[in-house]
Amino acid sequence: MNQLQNYSKFRFVVAGFVVIFAVFLCSVSYAAQDPLPSWNDGSAKTAILGFVAAVTEKGGKDYVEPAQRIATFDHDGTLWVEYPMYTQILFAFERVKKLAPQHPEWKTKQPFKALLAGDMKTVGASGMKGIMEILMATHSGMTAEEFEREASNWLATAKHPKFDRLYSECIYQPQLELLAYLRTNDFKTFIVSGGGIQFMRPITEKNYGIPPEQVVGSSAVAEFQIKDGKPEIIRLPKINFVNDKAGKPVGIYQHIGRRPILAFGNSDSDMQMVEYTMAGEGRRIGLFVHHTDGEREYAYDRKSHVGTLDKALDRAAAMGWIIVDMMKDWKKVFPAK
Amino acid sequence: MNQLQNYSKFRFVVAGFVVIFAVFLCSVSYAAQDPLPSWNDGSAKTAILGFVAAVTEKGGKDYVEPAQRIATFDHDGTLWVEYPMYTQILFAFERVKKLAPQHPEWKTKQPFKALLAGDMKTVGASGMKGIMEILMATHSGMTAEEFEREASNWLATAKHPKFDRLYSECIYQPQLELLAYLRTNDFKTFIVSGGGIQFMRPITEKNYGIPPEQVVGSSAVAEFQIKDGKPEIIRLPKINFVNDKAGKPVGIYQHIGRRPILAFGNSDSDMQMVEYTMAGEGRRIGLFVHHTDGEREYAYDRKSHVGTLDKALDRAAAMGWIIVDMMKDWKKVFPAK
Repeated sequence: MNQLQNYSKFRFVVAGFVVIFAVFLCSVSYAAQDPLPSWNDGSAKTAILGFVAAVTEKGGKDYVEPAQRIATFDHDGTLWVEYPMYTQILFAFERVKKLAPQHPEWKTKQPFKALLAGDMKTVGASGMKGIMEILMATHSGMTAEEFEREASNWLATAKHPKFDRLYSECIYQPQLELLAYLRTNDFKTFIVSGGGIQFMRPITEKNYGIPPEQVVGSSAVAEFQIKDGKPEIIRLPKINFVNDKAGKPVGIYQHIGRRPILAFGNSDSDMQMVEYTMAGEGRRIGLFVHHTDGEREYAYDRKSHVGTLDKALDRAAAMGWIIVDMMKDWKKVFPAK
Repeated sequence: MNQLQNYSKFRFVVAGFVVIFAVFLCSVSYAAQDPLPSWNDGSAKTAILGFVAAVTEKGGKDYVEPAQRIATFDHDGTLWVEYPMYTQILFAFERVKKLAPQHPEWKTKQPFKALLAGDMKTVGASGMKGIMEILMATHSGMTAEEFEREASNWLATAKHPKFDRLYSECIYQPQLELLAYLRTNDFKTFIVSGGGIQFMRPITEKNYGIPPEQVVGSSAVAEFQIKDGKPEIIRLPKINFVNDKAGKPVGIYQHIGRRPILAFGNSDSDMQMVEYTMAGEGRRIGLFVHHTDGEREYAYDRKSHVGTLDKALDRAAAMGWIIVDMMKDWKKVFPAK
């Protein structure tokens, strides 16, 4: 091989690298252009991208200081699956079975008796009052650390009946991208859920990149005690705060202390949070997940036993709320396993 | 001037720059060595520096993950002056005078009558019950935004009687350095105060670099209402939570959801927060400001009408709590104006 051939070969190799590098650059630049790859193009995605561009454009008329970029997300049905039953209720049911040997009185006391007999119709008929009794009995009488351990252990093993996944893995890929995209744009992301604040906290950092102190939820009364010589928080069987419906804006006020500029829910329980968010000054956005995807997830709205979306659906157009159609707007529902 | 002279002059100039640069380097390196310049050398400063070094040393036996580096500070008397009276109480007194024309019934109702007549002895004799009545009457019946405006406006003008400073400027320089130092070392800093959460929030970001959502405090019950067609939070004349004494660990649990590894207070009201902090696993530190400086600030402890430091002082040595002696440990009390 002479010098010229060598040179020619060298040029060929260089050209090859240039092509590879160009392809790499294009893919990088495409990714930079699409921070929400699991969202299909459509009005919802356009609205989100337009909103974030507007509030982050320095000197623009809709510019919002980073400190004021507060985004609040409901949890059940907005960030993870809530169908056919809220995960925390299932956890409570399991705990009744586990704790039954220490509670002989449950053999004759409703709704515990029905639950232990697998008679879910009677449990359901006990209504909110019955469910609250089950929640109180299973979520109190232990230290904060003990409860956290119970919740963590259960969430680390319990699987969803429809998907071959842990409940804690039934989270929505498009929302993970949205949360990351918002944080990249200096938003502070919060969960504002009707669910129990301490039930969610063990998984929110790992699942969503949201630390415990950015989780707002319903809570039980707690008490400081010296237990066996050790200062501890004890959970009491008494409701402290219900962070649902009109409670959500109140929870936001007490916990966050600023009005969000983005609120994302999926049911009528999130309507007041969205109303409160939208009523502030400047540009804002309110969104609802509409569960339309019976195949990849579930299809339910107006007459559902969980996550009822009815009034909010009727009012959305007039109020300028964005309805995210799971089937049409989400390319993908769950993260790859 | 010949070539040689020129060269010699050049050398002189270079030498001058080298000296200046060396001085600059030394000062930079000294600043890097002393993140707490307003703290005098002594056991308190040594304990703080040692603690932060230990929990941030990767691979060290006391290493703590950044996410777990939670530091909680009391507010009154720990971050700003609380003597001769808590700032928020003074704000409430001023509001009684301002609101009096709309409340003719106060002319005959105690403790309002005494307060309006300047009879502070009778106001004091009305005790906690009387003070709570004044707080409720002056801190409720308005929207969240209205209250924030009232508090902000007052804090922007009200001056401390001893220092030629706004109350909001009577903040401790050594603590500002400590907060910044902790954040540089990936701590998340929180205020955990017996004071009203919404009274503090308008100033904590500017004063201490602590955003509203990292302020935990006492609160009034709030309600979501549609007022004049606008969704608003309304403050009600009812106590929601008292974040004091045994309430502090509970407030930390509900609001932050993690046990701090550093807690800093100044009175017996902070004792449970410090006990709770110290009782966790791994290395921890608990500190109290001891107000010993009658000249630069105030000297008070066991028998004070505000910020009583008595039991905590007795227990400190046995419990390994650090007592920070304001006179000895702080080179400077307030920031330069």
